[in-house]
Amino acid sequence: MRADEMQQIVADFGAIGATASGGVTRPGLTDLERAALERARAWMVHLGMDAAYDHVGNLRGTWAGARPDAAPVLTGSHLDSVVEGGRYDGAAGVLCALAAVETLRAQGHTPERPLGVCVFTSEEGSRFGPGLLGSTALVRGLTADQLGASGDDGVTVARAIAEAGGDPGAAAAPALAPGAVHAFIEVHIEQASRLEEAGAPVGIVSGIAGPLFARGVVTGVADHAGATPMGQRADALCGLAELVLAVERTASAADTTVATVGSARAHPGQANIIPGRAEFSLDLRDVDLSARDRAEAEIRAVLDELTRRRGLHGELEVIQREPPVAVDPQVVAALETAVAGAGLDLVRVPSGAAHDAMIMADIAPIGMLFVRCRGGLSHCPQEYASPEDLVAASDVLARALAQLT
Amino acid sequence: MRADEMQQIVADFGAIGATASGGVTRPGLTDLERAALERARAWMVHLGMDAAYDHVGNLRGTWAGARPDAAPVLTGSHLDSVVEGGRYDGAAGVLCALAAVETLRAQGHTPERPLGVCVFTSEEGSRFGPGLLGSTALVRGLTADQLGASGDDGVTVARAIAEAGGDPGAAAAPALAPGAVHAFIEVHIEQASRLEEAGAPVGIVSGIAGPLFARGVVTGVADHAGATPMGQRADALCGLAELVLAVERTASAADTTVATVGSARAHPGQANIIPGRAEFSLDLRDVDLSARDRAEAEIRAVLDELTRRRGLHGELEVIQREPPVAVDPQVVAALETAVAGAGLDLVRVPSGAAHDAMIMADIAPIGMLFVRCRGGLSHCPQEYASPEDLVAASDVLARALAQLT
Repeated sequence: MRADEMQQIVADFGAIGATASGGVTRPGLTDLERAALERARAWMVHLGMDAAYDHVGNLRGTWAGARPDAAPVLTGSHLDSVVEGGRYDGAAGVLCALAAVETLRAQGHTPERPLGVCVFTSEEGSRFGPGLLGSTALVRGLTADQLGASGDDGVTVARAIAEAGGDPGAAAAPALAPGAVHAFIEVHIEQASRLEEAGAPVGIVSGIAGPLFARGVVTGVADHAGATPMGQRADALCGLAELVLAVERTASAADTTVATVGSARAHPGQANIIPGRAEFSLDLRDVDLSARDRAEAEIRAVLDELTRRRGLHGELEVIQREPPVAVDPQVVAALETAVAGAGLDLVRVPSGAAHDAMIMADIAPIGMLFVRCRGGLSHCPQEYASPEDLVAASDVLARALAQLT
Repeated sequence: MRADEMQQIVADFGAIGATASGGVTRPGLTDLERAALERARAWMVHLGMDAAYDHVGNLRGTWAGARPDAAPVLTGSHLDSVVEGGRYDGAAGVLCALAAVETLRAQGHTPERPLGVCVFTSEEGSRFGPGLLGSTALVRGLTADQLGASGDDGVTVARAIAEAGGDPGAAAAPALAPGAVHAFIEVHIEQASRLEEAGAPVGIVSGIAGPLFARGVVTGVADHAGATPMGQRADALCGLAELVLAVERTASAADTTVATVGSARAHPGQANIIPGRAEFSLDLRDVDLSARDRAEAEIRAVLDELTRRRGLHGELEVIQREPPVAVDPQVVAALETAVAGAGLDLVRVPSGAAHDAMIMADIAPIGMLFVRCRGGLSHCPQEYASPEDLVAASDVLARALAQLT
């Protein structure tokens, strides 16, 4: 596929749910997502694939290949977006997947295994949180809580699935068992600018970071902001300020760690009262679990030291602790061969964000290919990947699929 | 007065509005405040003073002296308290004033000028914010906004004054003109622990700090907490954290400056989103205006530097900028002579908090005497000043009043 063709396809999909600001708003399980899915389905049909929605509204196009009963190789991503999102998050993976099939068809390739293109519904969770809905339904099944959750309009997930022609009654059971998929590859924009800095159009994902979510509180003594001399204070916010900077410093000094205090609030929060309490959240991620453990230990040590020195009390409670998701060596090897075959430099990048591939990893060997995106911006109308880079990604994907199928 | 007598008086007043935790709750313009005022009035009458409430509910006891038409020397404080406050904030000044009159009577002293003991209503503002109500009404008059303000129960200040037997219609005009008062002295617990550290029962206030209140915002770029590498962030909270520590450092390095970030909040405040905005307040006080100006300039320079370095934007808007209130050299000289006469060390301490004396300074030369309090604690049930220290303060006050009247 040529870059100008890719540019036209990006524009065609970008017109669906287009916003005045140049972005798109296509929440999952809405007519706007369905319009984009229908456009993808038409392309699948044009490519000679069997195309069908499953019981929760995921779309899958299948190229049966020489051994239709073999475990398939799947690729894909999603076409829903956040509110005022961009044209590339999700869509890049779907368009590259279909362009890769088009390339393989044009090259006269016939796969041994079935080759499937998946378009997962509701990855972003912008109508119904928390996202990854379609892949979760396939791999894990949906819980009663997940099916009963409702968005702002009061409609439940179950009803939205039914209204989209699905069968929410079947959604509790997983549809894919371990071993049912030979390999899964997801192409996605990087949402960071490591590739831009490296001058590389694509990068092979080294792993999907495992998040640790914690919440904490620093306690001191609320006191009179005018009467209390500086040396006699136990200011909880000053303690938290030290911790926030230590969190930043710890992650910055490490290789792949990212750490964020996203929520922070001083109490009682009055201008003329020294904060007696400061609450905060911690989001700590790494593709390398031991590096994340080291960072956690370092942050706890800083909290201990500063609260002791300042006469404060500190607590940090872990709410969720997910392991990093490993990419499969054989899938990565296929991507490496493909990158080399395309004449590109081999660049490895971690994925800090969660993706459908993370869920698919429960039941299949996975790999991911990131596409360079401008300024690392995503979830905004400024999101951008060049048509040349998307063509390069689609070419690498086609080469990897040719090996794996 | 002996220490055991003072202890009994403290206990008698402390029983009015006593709380289970050992403190008191006596909001201004309530029956509880009035019960304490009535007890003070009885003591005034016992001391042979004329005792009367004014149009807003302040109580004044007057010892006419040899020249009843001369401008009086006044002393006093308040008997209202914050919710779950202590027995000493305000009450110490009233009890020491009445004990001083008792001492002067016992010594056979006859003042030339009238000697008045004032008990100002609603200093704390715990029923009706923002406090200093009684002294403000006397010296400045109350605005329509102040008279129309209502507390949690919907009752306005005007109605509460009327219900207490006052005349809210007369409250708009100031009752005291400049020159109408020869001198005003307020005794108050220190609400800090400089005197405790110095081992001194009392200290002469060197000035009342002028507060500067500001609010600010640091703006960065909200982004994905997982996908955005540490080096590519513009984290508004990290910027604010640096500022909070700089505020603390700046004030700590100065002599009399205190500075507090009392309110701080990250936005959007989600654990998995890098804060794009952080709002904060700044409370900066100094008895020395040029030192406060230097601190303000230093804090602004830090904000400029860190926002430039971090790719953030910072704003700091001053909402209120009050000058420090000077104490009068002649009143201070009288207090110094009194301290020396009592055989005590001369210790000078700044007042970080606002007091009725600050308002009285509009129309009269003022001075303040601080009493040592345990651990610097105030506005809590743990608030404590020893009866010995209160007797010492009352003795110093009696000596100063003898000179000034």
